[in-house]
Amino acid sequence: MKPTDDAKASDAQKAPPLKPGRGRRRAEDVRRATLAAAAELLFGEGVRAVTFDKVAARAGVSKMTLYKWWASPGSLAFEAYFDEVEDALAFPATGDVRADLTAQLHAFVALMERHGGAVAEIIGAAQSDRELASALEEQYVRPRRRLAVERLTVARQAGQIRDGVDLETLVDQLWGACYHRLLMPAEPLTAAFADKLVANLFAGIAGPAGDTPAVAATTAGTSG
Amino acid sequence: MKPTDDAKASDAQKAPPLKPGRGRRRAEDVRRATLAAAAELLFGEGVRAVTFDKVAARAGVSKMTLYKWWASPGSLAFEAYFDEVEDALAFPATGDVRADLTAQLHAFVALMERHGGAVAEIIGAAQSDRELASALEEQYVRPRRRLAVERLTVARQAGQIRDGVDLETLVDQLWGACYHRLLMPAEPLTAAFADKLVANLFAGIAGPAGDTPAVAATTAGTSG
Repeated sequence: MKPTDDAKASDAQKAPPLKPGRGRRRAEDVRRATLAAAAELLFGEGVRAVTFDKVAARAGVSKMTLYKWWASPGSLAFEAYFDEVEDALAFPATGDVRADLTAQLHAFVALMERHGGAVAEIIGAAQSDRELASALEEQYVRPRRRLAVERLTVARQAGQIRDGVDLETLVDQLWGACYHRLLMPAEPLTAAFADKLVANLFAGIAGPAGDTPAVAATTAGTSG
Repeated sequence: MKPTDDAKASDAQKAPPLKPGRGRRRAEDVRRATLAAAAELLFGEGVRAVTFDKVAARAGVSKMTLYKWWASPGSLAFEAYFDEVEDALAFPATGDVRADLTAQLHAFVALMERHGGAVAEIIGAAQSDRELASALEEQYVRPRRRLAVERLTVARQAGQIRDGVDLETLVDQLWGACYHRLLMPAEPLTAAFADKLVANLFAGIAGPAGDTPAVAATTAGTSG
């Protein structure tokens, strides 16, 4: 935790609940204390522990404020998660898309080594909880996909990714492949695995006898 | 349901619980009736409905038999699922690996259109249920991965996939990418998506300016 975060956290512990007119805590401080408390509960005890009651008590914030600012505890949990991982999962843009994707995927794998259990539990719970599923999609899945596609778009514009490649599909073949190892474990989720994901896509996997047979088969009569 | 299955199901309903020495039902018939009953419960009501009590009642099989043959209800649920989908998810081997993978992925996507909800619920529940997770891994994830890698190995031996490509990683970039769209929905899981998964890997995604920059960067000083 950074020094400024420590200061904020101890502020939050000492501060009384926010009261209208009292004016002791700015809205942004309250938001930060709330997200920090939600993240602690999320990573410490799992998504089910992120309730408005517990977060309000831990952040020293009134429950009314939480009800006003967040649609549901699930929505708060995801904003907390997103806020927590945003810096760690930033997309570098050095101009070399393979190096940048590799660096970002390594950071993602490292984050999963620390928080993969909580993340898997959230995604798991969302499969039978419509409200949580909606929060997951809106607060996490779509924003993360958007950031990835933005970085990939720059690479395609620079000619590092072929025209015509569907960038949304790449998201599933890079980060989705990692989530597969997290949620349906059998093989390890490692930095070396991330390297292979990138290499398979950029270098292609076709062997000398397999460059275009399927194309040839579906366009029978024309040369591949 | 096929006629033979109907016959088995009605047999199962009429048949008394299996008793030693009674000899009315062969072990294989009991096994089939049990798996059919478990599959009905799984697809109709979800994995939590697959209990030894309910399956025994529905299949007309004694609970003792279930305890003897299956380690847990989760293990029974997965054997039932695996048995149900085995034919639909067979790996064709026409000699053209791209066409074969595409056909198998289309069958997988079609299966998810019908049963994706139940599958997502199983995988979701496994994230916070150690016994279910273990059954999922042993009864489904590992056997499915093994079948996929076997088919991919034949393709690599035939030169349709490059030497050195890690086949386990391909499993995550094909079926894992599909599971990503099932479990963290935002973009649709369709046959067209499956086609793109295959195309990205076989054709590679590198553009004219992006063939080998990362390789050059990591082996600075040598030519890529």
